[in-house]
Amino acid sequence: MQDFELKNVKGTFDFLPEEQIIRNKITNTLRDSFELYGYLPLETPIICYYDLLASKYAGGSEILKEVYKLEDQGKRKLGLRYDLTVPFSKVIGMMKEPVLPFKRYEIGKVFRDGPVKMGRNREFYQCDVDVCGVKDISIEAELFSMTVYAYTKLGIDIEIKYNNRKLLSGLILECGIKEDIISNVILIIDKLEKISKKELYFELNSIGVNESIADKLFSCFSLSLEEIKDKYINTNNELLKQGIEEILELNAYLEGMNIIKYTSFKPFLARGLEIYTGTVWEIFDKKNRITSSLGGGGRYDKIITNFINDGNIYPAVGMSFGLEPIYTILKEENIKTPLYDLYIFPFEMSPEILNIAQTLRQSGIKVIVEMNRKKIKKGLDFANRNNIPYVIIVGEDEIKTNTYSLKNMLTGEQRSLSLEEIVKELKNEN
Amino acid sequence: MQDFELKNVKGTFDFLPEEQIIRNKITNTLRDSFELYGYLPLETPIICYYDLLASKYAGGSEILKEVYKLEDQGKRKLGLRYDLTVPFSKVIGMMKEPVLPFKRYEIGKVFRDGPVKMGRNREFYQCDVDVCGVKDISIEAELFSMTVYAYTKLGIDIEIKYNNRKLLSGLILECGIKEDIISNVILIIDKLEKISKKELYFELNSIGVNESIADKLFSCFSLSLEEIKDKYINTNNELLKQGIEEILELNAYLEGMNIIKYTSFKPFLARGLEIYTGTVWEIFDKKNRITSSLGGGGRYDKIITNFINDGNIYPAVGMSFGLEPIYTILKEENIKTPLYDLYIFPFEMSPEILNIAQTLRQSGIKVIVEMNRKKIKKGLDFANRNNIPYVIIVGEDEIKTNTYSLKNMLTGEQRSLSLEEIVKELKNEN
Repeated sequence: MQDFELKNVKGTFDFLPEEQIIRNKITNTLRDSFELYGYLPLETPIICYYDLLASKYAGGSEILKEVYKLEDQGKRKLGLRYDLTVPFSKVIGMMKEPVLPFKRYEIGKVFRDGPVKMGRNREFYQCDVDVCGVKDISIEAELFSMTVYAYTKLGIDIEIKYNNRKLLSGLILECGIKEDIISNVILIIDKLEKISKKELYFELNSIGVNESIADKLFSCFSLSLEEIKDKYINTNNELLKQGIEEILELNAYLEGMNIIKYTSFKPFLARGLEIYTGTVWEIFDKKNRITSSLGGGGRYDKIITNFINDGNIYPAVGMSFGLEPIYTILKEENIKTPLYDLYIFPFEMSPEILNIAQTLRQSGIKVIVEMNRKKIKKGLDFANRNNIPYVIIVGEDEIKTNTYSLKNMLTGEQRSLSLEEIVKELKNEN
Repeated sequence: MQDFELKNVKGTFDFLPEEQIIRNKITNTLRDSFELYGYLPLETPIICYYDLLASKYAGGSEILKEVYKLEDQGKRKLGLRYDLTVPFSKVIGMMKEPVLPFKRYEIGKVFRDGPVKMGRNREFYQCDVDVCGVKDISIEAELFSMTVYAYTKLGIDIEIKYNNRKLLSGLILECGIKEDIISNVILIIDKLEKISKKELYFELNSIGVNESIADKLFSCFSLSLEEIKDKYINTNNELLKQGIEEILELNAYLEGMNIIKYTSFKPFLARGLEIYTGTVWEIFDKKNRITSSLGGGGRYDKIITNFINDGNIYPAVGMSFGLEPIYTILKEENIKTPLYDLYIFPFEMSPEILNIAQTLRQSGIKVIVEMNRKKIKKGLDFANRNNIPYVIIVGEDEIKTNTYSLKNMLTGEQRSLSLEEIVKELKNEN
């Protein structure tokens, strides 16, 4: 043994083949969906200048505490990226003449040196889709449509809870709360489905929102969109009015595209604190197998604009798909994925054996060849442990006559077939 | 502007969509090839315990100078991985009962804080294929076969230069060089095709190998395999004998599989210093578009064995595919890859427009919808700049009559087609 224990750093994980096959399926499905919807692949570095990560328009002070800092041999101050939005903003900022809209996706690892708990790791994937340069709300509708498409492909029924930050701020103002504490109120309201009413009243009271105003707030949040519209559409609270109009416009798209059935309007949904400026949404498993969100997104028209600060406006909308919660759900389905399609057990290794493997592989069949002169019982054991569905045992006679006994490991059935017939048989399966 | 310049850290890069599309094609082709040949996906963390990276059986002192070191909030000594072989060894070491052979691939980023020069970056991908638990040389033959398959799929003609480290060490001993300086001699010999004869003599002389022995060495290295065999097959230099036998066995496979034409035997090839124990190979572009190697591999029967050190032998063979040199070659081909299949230019946005996009996407067509109320000239400009091959311009009439004018942006040709006909047309293209 080594003079140190072989183990992973807390909050980091190895994904063994049975697990990684599922993870690859998820990212492939996401990638395909993103590309169909016109999002292009972008890849950005993991190591960044610390100054970029700490920029005041980047992730904020809470996240900055969790940045892994490092130095290179030239003593430059560096850090590991903690999200994919800052790199996205940087890329747009570095383009001489960005061709907008710029629709990109990036699937990559990010790093946070924070407390490790349920669903929070030190290094994890973000699967992010963002578009810069579209003000029209049809882009949000398209993202909702892509969300439904992608989760349907993944076999997960979802509910998209959505809101509009202008509407939310407008309602808060409407209840008589002053503008300077809106952010604090939103921070508390965001916990509405997570903590008790009593705690909410207590927290609101602690920032100067008394019980009668809190009552008013909660009664607002129990209104339907229809009721909010009827009550406030002629308000001279501009923020609230705009919020209502935007969400009605979005709803017209969702109805016209027949995807409104996947959504539910939640006037209290905030999704974090400061960055969002319009539509926000979060995605949940309809079967409630996990209660945390499976992803979400929102419009953030100010971040890139402030970040680049060249006098132009850079409207932006983005969303994240959560690889980890999706993986948690699909892993639970416990589908035994075969690691290979076929196992060749030769009585003796020879170039002919590898030629047989080659013929099968060229037809897209995943083959593993036994090269360790195992006893046949051990060979079949290996096939079983790896869930390999088919085995052929090959000796000189089989090669001479081009007749192989194809053993179905599930049923135990054996059939004598030529190599060409085996290819046909296995291709029909897939 | 920001109070700091937006730029990337030296030796790290953004890959914009036109570039990333090519890179994704390469990694997809490699992934498919690896899986056909029975290698399974594994993913390991980027952040590792420094002790693991610094283990005496890991990458060695040269590489250790280039490790990015960091600490977490718990003051643990950590580092970023510099290769994928140490994590592979760790995974096997951590398994309670490893099911061997374990054939895995990993495509992931590694980090080295070294001098940035041609082809050496601070963060870069390794695409590694390794197998632990097979002694038989048929596994090397299978890897050669996979190499030919993968590069053929990538459209690159290759030459595999190969050798056997036992044969190389044996030849050096045979020339009268003492065992204790073999490693040093190999280090110099490895430069045989890179520096001049004069420099080689000088370097060899500096470690005590005089001119007449050097002459003897060089004459050995100009022998063909046939000549080496005839001359040394009955030697009592056991190492040399074993080396010859192993390479003859490998050659029988290469001939039997009809892939020997892709290979050339180079008795001086060493491929680095200490880790390899048998077959070694390096892959080169036959057209010499780049002269550095495109990848390579070798047998290393001692590393994992020493690393785990539990009394068992863990024979291993592995190889790397070089994403960066492959990308350099394919980028030069300058194939303009369309970023999208079709661009919808609506006179006015509406749910119907997104429903048209949805229908096309559900047939696998990559669609981008214009949402910015551009002038039509600007829209066609956008399509041209992004190499989008097809455009449809959609107004109310088109929707009512289900008749769209499909514009081929390359030929300028326009045809009136229903949505269903457009799907057929574009699917036939692909």
